[in-house]
Amino acid sequence: MKADRIYNFNPGPAALPLPVLEEIQESFLNYGGSGMSVAEISHRSKEFDDIINDAVARIRRLLKLDDGWQVLFIQGGASTQFCMVPMNLLGDGDTADYVDTGTWSTKAIKEARTLDKAVRVPASSEDRNFCYIPSAIEFNPDAVYAHITSNNTIKGTQWAEFPDTGGVPLVADMSSDIMSRPMDMGKFGLVYAGAQKNIGPAGVCLVIIRKDMLDRVPDQLPSMLKYTTFAAKNSLYNTPPSFAIYTVQLVLKWIEETIGGLEEMEGVNRRKAASLYDFFDGSDFYRGTADVDSRSVMNITFRLPDENLEAMFVKQALESGLGGLKGHRSVGGCRASIYNPTPIEAVEALIDFMKTFEKQAG
Amino acid sequence: MKADRIYNFNPGPAALPLPVLEEIQESFLNYGGSGMSVAEISHRSKEFDDIINDAVARIRRLLKLDDGWQVLFIQGGASTQFCMVPMNLLGDGDTADYVDTGTWSTKAIKEARTLDKAVRVPASSEDRNFCYIPSAIEFNPDAVYAHITSNNTIKGTQWAEFPDTGGVPLVADMSSDIMSRPMDMGKFGLVYAGAQKNIGPAGVCLVIIRKDMLDRVPDQLPSMLKYTTFAAKNSLYNTPPSFAIYTVQLVLKWIEETIGGLEEMEGVNRRKAASLYDFFDGSDFYRGTADVDSRSVMNITFRLPDENLEAMFVKQALESGLGGLKGHRSVGGCRASIYNPTPIEAVEALIDFMKTFEKQAG
Repeated sequence: MKADRIYNFNPGPAALPLPVLEEIQESFLNYGGSGMSVAEISHRSKEFDDIINDAVARIRRLLKLDDGWQVLFIQGGASTQFCMVPMNLLGDGDTADYVDTGTWSTKAIKEARTLDKAVRVPASSEDRNFCYIPSAIEFNPDAVYAHITSNNTIKGTQWAEFPDTGGVPLVADMSSDIMSRPMDMGKFGLVYAGAQKNIGPAGVCLVIIRKDMLDRVPDQLPSMLKYTTFAAKNSLYNTPPSFAIYTVQLVLKWIEETIGGLEEMEGVNRRKAASLYDFFDGSDFYRGTADVDSRSVMNITFRLPDENLEAMFVKQALESGLGGLKGHRSVGGCRASIYNPTPIEAVEALIDFMKTFEKQAG
Repeated sequence: MKADRIYNFNPGPAALPLPVLEEIQESFLNYGGSGMSVAEISHRSKEFDDIINDAVARIRRLLKLDDGWQVLFIQGGASTQFCMVPMNLLGDGDTADYVDTGTWSTKAIKEARTLDKAVRVPASSEDRNFCYIPSAIEFNPDAVYAHITSNNTIKGTQWAEFPDTGGVPLVADMSSDIMSRPMDMGKFGLVYAGAQKNIGPAGVCLVIIRKDMLDRVPDQLPSMLKYTTFAAKNSLYNTPPSFAIYTVQLVLKWIEETIGGLEEMEGVNRRKAASLYDFFDGSDFYRGTADVDSRSVMNITFRLPDENLEAMFVKQALESGLGGLKGHRSVGGCRASIYNPTPIEAVEALIDFMKTFEKQAG
C-alpha cells in the first residue's frame, strides 16, 4: 500500500486498481496528446470512439461474446435496469420468473410489479434471512426470462453455479461479481452490472444483451428507456458518462493485461476469499453469516461476539488503515468487500489485524 | 493557456476550469485525507455527504432558492428528462405547451408524445430553420407547464428574456446555459440541465423542482423514474454518479469563489460573446447565423463563404491550438461554444486566428 492510502473494503463505490488511478491522474490535464482532459473531450471525437470501442472489444474478449451479443453502457445504475428489463422484455401476456435472494432481488421484483408485469417468484431464501442460495428450483418453461442476482452484496451469498432453467434465458444482475470469474454466457439472455464494484467507478451500468432479445423491445417506449436506442448508436445516442466509461476501459485493460484474464482474476479472487473463510472457520471469535455452499467470493459477511465489539472492530480497523468494514445498515455486523481491484495484500493485512484484535478483545 | 493544452470550444462535453482539473488531479489518489480516491469513496460516507451537500448549498445560493425548491442529481442526461418530465407531471387529461426552437425542443416534444401525453406547440421557429426565438406566444392558461429550451446549442439561439406564460409554470431545459447568468426562478416549476457544458463533466443531470410540483408525481412509476424518489433521499436512493457530482461541486465553487457569482459570470460570458459578434458584424467573411435579437451568449454559430473554407478553418484552427470549432453535423458551418469555463483569452486567441485566416484565404 502506498504510504498515504488505506486498504479499501467498501462495498461500492469501491477500490480501484492503483495503476488505473495513477494513469488517470497522470494524463488528467492532457489526454493522449489531445490538449484536453478526458473529462473535456467530445463524445463524438476519435479519442472517445477509441475509448468506448476498446472497452467493448475487451468485454467481448473477456466474456467470449460472438456477434450474437450487444454491449451497452447505460446510466442510472442497476436500479434503473430493474425497470428497463421488464419494460423492454415483457409484453402483454408475458411472464417472468424472479428468484429472491435478498435486498436487490426483492427490489427487482418490486419494480417489475410496479409496472404491472406478470412476475412469479419460484424460489426465495427469505425463510432464513437470505443466508443461502436456493437450489432445485422449478422454473416456468413459458417464462420469457428467469431473473437472478448473481452475487448478493448485503447478505454475502453468491450463486456458485447458475441454475438450470430448462432453456429459459437467464437475466442476471451481476453488479457485484461481473468479470470476477469466467462464465458461460450460453445460459443468458441479458446481463447487467453497475460498474462501481468490479470494473470501474459509479455512474455507468454495463448491459450485455443477446441480439434476439432486442426484438422484444416495444416501439412505444421513450428513447432513453429502450435498449434498441443504445444498441443502434453504440451507446452514443446522447452524451454518455464519458469519464466513467474511460475508467471502465482502464480497469478492463488491467484485468486483461496485468492480471492476465478472467481465469487468473478468478484465481486471485478465490485465494483472497479462501484466506478469510479459512480464518473464520478456525476461529470461535469471528463467524461467517452465509451458508458455506452459498458463500460469496466478493463480499465476506461476518459477525463478532457482540455489537459493541463489532463497532470497536470497524473503528480500530480504520485507524489501522483498513476502511469500509461495516456491514450494510439493514443487517449490521461486518463485511469485507474484496472485488477484483482489492489486492491479496489487503486481505493479508485484514487477517493480521483480525488476529491482533481478537487477542486484545478476546 | 498551459503549454500543452488547447483552447477547447467543444459543445459538450466541454472545457472545464483549469483550477478545477488541477484540484482533481492533485487529490486523485487521496481525497481529503481519506486514503482513497474520490472515485473510490462510499456514497454513504461523511466525505461524500459533504460533497453533495456543498454542491446543493451552492446551487441554492447561486440561484437564490428558498425552501420551496428541491435540488436533485439524476443520471441519463437531459434526454432522460424529456420523458421524466411528462411522466411525472402530466396526468390523464392534463396538457402541456412546448415551444419548438430546434433539435432539442423537437426531441422533448417527440418523447412526450411517445408517452401519449397531450402536448400542444403554441410556437415554433421551424419556418426559418430555427434561427430565431419566437415572441408574443399565446400559451394555454390551462397547461400544467410550458416547456422551453433556454439555449439552443445547435442553432446558436437563446431566450434573452423568458416568455410571459400568464402564470403557467415554465419547465426549461437549461443544459447549455445553466449558471451562466442570474435568473429569477419565480417563473419556473422545474429546470433541468445536463452538467457537461456549464457546470461539470458528462454523467449527471441537475434537476431543480418546485416542491408543489412533486405532488403531481404518480405513485405507480418505477422508483428510478420518479422525482419523489430522488427528493426523499437527497439523490442518494441508489449509488449516484459520485465523481461527476464532485466535479460539479468544484465548478460551482469556482463560479462562486473565483469568478464571484452569477452576476460576474454573466459579465464574463457577455464580454466573450460580444467580442465575437462584434467581430462578425464588422466582417464580410464571417457571418453569424442567428437573428441578432436571438443570438446565444453560449454557442456562437457562424459560416464562412463556402464549405471548403469552413473545413480548412476548422482544421487550421486545431493546428493552432483551437479545438472543437466544427458546427453540429445536422447544420454544418462553424460553432464556438464558450460556456462558463472558457476564459476570455480563448476568445481573444480565436479572434486573432480568424483575422489571420481571413487574410490568408480572403
